[in-house]
Amino acid sequence: NPPESEILSERQVILEERAQRTDNNPQARFGEQMDAALYTNHPYGTPVIGWRHEMEDLTREDAMDFYNRWYAPNNAILVVSGDVTGEEVLALAQKIYGGLEVADTPKRERTLSPPMLGENIIRMSHETIREPLIQMAYRAPSMRQDYKTALALEVLGDIMGGGSSSRLYQSLVVEQKIAANAGLYYRGDIWDDGEVLLYATPLPEQDLETLRDALHAELRKLIRDGISDTELSESIARLQAGAIFARDSLAGPAMLVGRAIATGQSLDQVEYWPQNLEHVTARDVQNAAKLYLNPDAPRDIPPVIGYLTPETEAAQ
Amino acid sequence: NPPESEILSERQVILEERAQRTDNNPQARFGEQMDAALYTNHPYGTPVIGWRHEMEDLTREDAMDFYNRWYAPNNAILVVSGDVTGEEVLALAQKIYGGLEVADTPKRERTLSPPMLGENIIRMSHETIREPLIQMAYRAPSMRQDYKTALALEVLGDIMGGGSSSRLYQSLVVEQKIAANAGLYYRGDIWDDGEVLLYATPLPEQDLETLRDALHAELRKLIRDGISDTELSESIARLQAGAIFARDSLAGPAMLVGRAIATGQSLDQVEYWPQNLEHVTARDVQNAAKLYLNPDAPRDIPPVIGYLTPETEAAQ
Repeated sequence: NPPESEILSERQVILEERAQRTDNNPQARFGEQMDAALYTNHPYGTPVIGWRHEMEDLTREDAMDFYNRWYAPNNAILVVSGDVTGEEVLALAQKIYGGLEVADTPKRERTLSPPMLGENIIRMSHETIREPLIQMAYRAPSMRQDYKTALALEVLGDIMGGGSSSRLYQSLVVEQKIAANAGLYYRGDIWDDGEVLLYATPLPEQDLETLRDALHAELRKLIRDGISDTELSESIARLQAGAIFARDSLAGPAMLVGRAIATGQSLDQVEYWPQNLEHVTARDVQNAAKLYLNPDAPRDIPPVIGYLTPETEAAQ
Repeated sequence: NPPESEILSERQVILEERAQRTDNNPQARFGEQMDAALYTNHPYGTPVIGWRHEMEDLTREDAMDFYNRWYAPNNAILVVSGDVTGEEVLALAQKIYGGLEVADTPKRERTLSPPMLGENIIRMSHETIREPLIQMAYRAPSMRQDYKTALALEVLGDIMGGGSSSRLYQSLVVEQKIAANAGLYYRGDIWDDGEVLLYATPLPEQDLETLRDALHAELRKLIRDGISDTELSESIARLQAGAIFARDSLAGPAMLVGRAIATGQSLDQVEYWPQNLEHVTARDVQNAAKLYLNPDAPRDIPPVIGYLTPETEAAQ
């Protein structure tokens, strides 16, 4: 039961964290606004750290209310990583946490985003931005919602956007020479809808609309022609190797497991992720693109396109 | 204490109301999406009737909870309009409602919109749209928040957008011949931030970007040169005449008073609105435009620009 002074100093700490990471970082502000547009009427539209004006109002009572409502052993995940056996951990866990009372934690009610018909575009300019940036955010199923599609999207993400050998990089940076960087990122370890994010930074002389058209063209090509069997098998092998490398630390796998369980996945889904990847087919990847990344088929929750530029002219 | 069946049939009624007014009306859907973008993290981003998927889930318990929480005499406004005296009404009100228990209605906590840096643009196309439309929504103080500025905005709204003699209509429709219609509307009878909405419909051959530039040009002119004394006095006279005509019904004034009180205004502010208008100066109108409708000065909560078109090409 912490004293008021401790609450106030902790509040100051998180406010400074927000100032450093977000308020003084136009790209982070841009990301917040993209999320707010992509997740209308949904908690993912609110940044995890909170909006500044609401953080400033947080009181000791708010903190205690939150603690009393959610902090209970039946609402906790304990992950132990290291040179231990399950039996040892279970015995210790029972000893240390076994006495805590099971609490009646409320059901987690989630609002859902309503369908929208219009495309949402964010244009932001800031004097401290050095390089223009285009982002396109599409909503797509999470691991919990649709494990099979999520695995296909992991493969899709690797083929389209995983580093300098990926399709987007090869097309926009190496071949067309219109971008300094380009990629795609899929976030599926989340409870509700995940997100596929495409991004690109233009070379000087190139405008963001050119990059938008080039990104759209790559999506259309993927939807039309799919991926080759070689692309598929190489990608699965790369992702599996990555999963093995990820075991080379104590904190990494613990984080992975904790995050997966917290977002509704099973331990088996985490454990057999490398094997499950092998069931993904080229058709699965093409279908996922068709269903969730089609720039020409309006969806209930349309993508958000964001343009971040150094000059103010973009605010047109 | 209504039976379950009555709840279900009432729910069907509001769902059909929503279907008719909104779901099957692309312009209403467009308005919802504009509001959601303009009022991030604020209840005004949610339509009053509700999002369809949430309405479908409403239960008898939800209705009763809402009723028990908010329906109390200390949270009600009784407006009686007609050939009565205050004394008669008070006696009847005491007799009819006096026995109801005062309830402990909770404080109405309102979330606020966080500051955003980027401009928000909505582009929507729908096959049933006959005429393209551009809308620009700016947030501006409500009557409750800033009565003086709100009065200036009422005058501004009349001069800029009040019918075919207004500046926007005269400029875009009559002189430049680029629009079939153009106007501006200020909504100030609201608890939190109000809204100034500019809109225009192009003549064939004209695109929406031309109208956007023309609307911006009119705002810049207003900010730079203000309004003339003649415009001011004629507008005030027009608004006062409107207030007198508004008394020519029973329901109209009752609605006006109820709405004003419910949104935090005082009876005096309603009663003396025509006289208070006379204190608005040309400078007040120019300042309100400068502070709240400046397309060139980024604000914490930037305007939303929406483009509604018949064709799908606008989804670029």
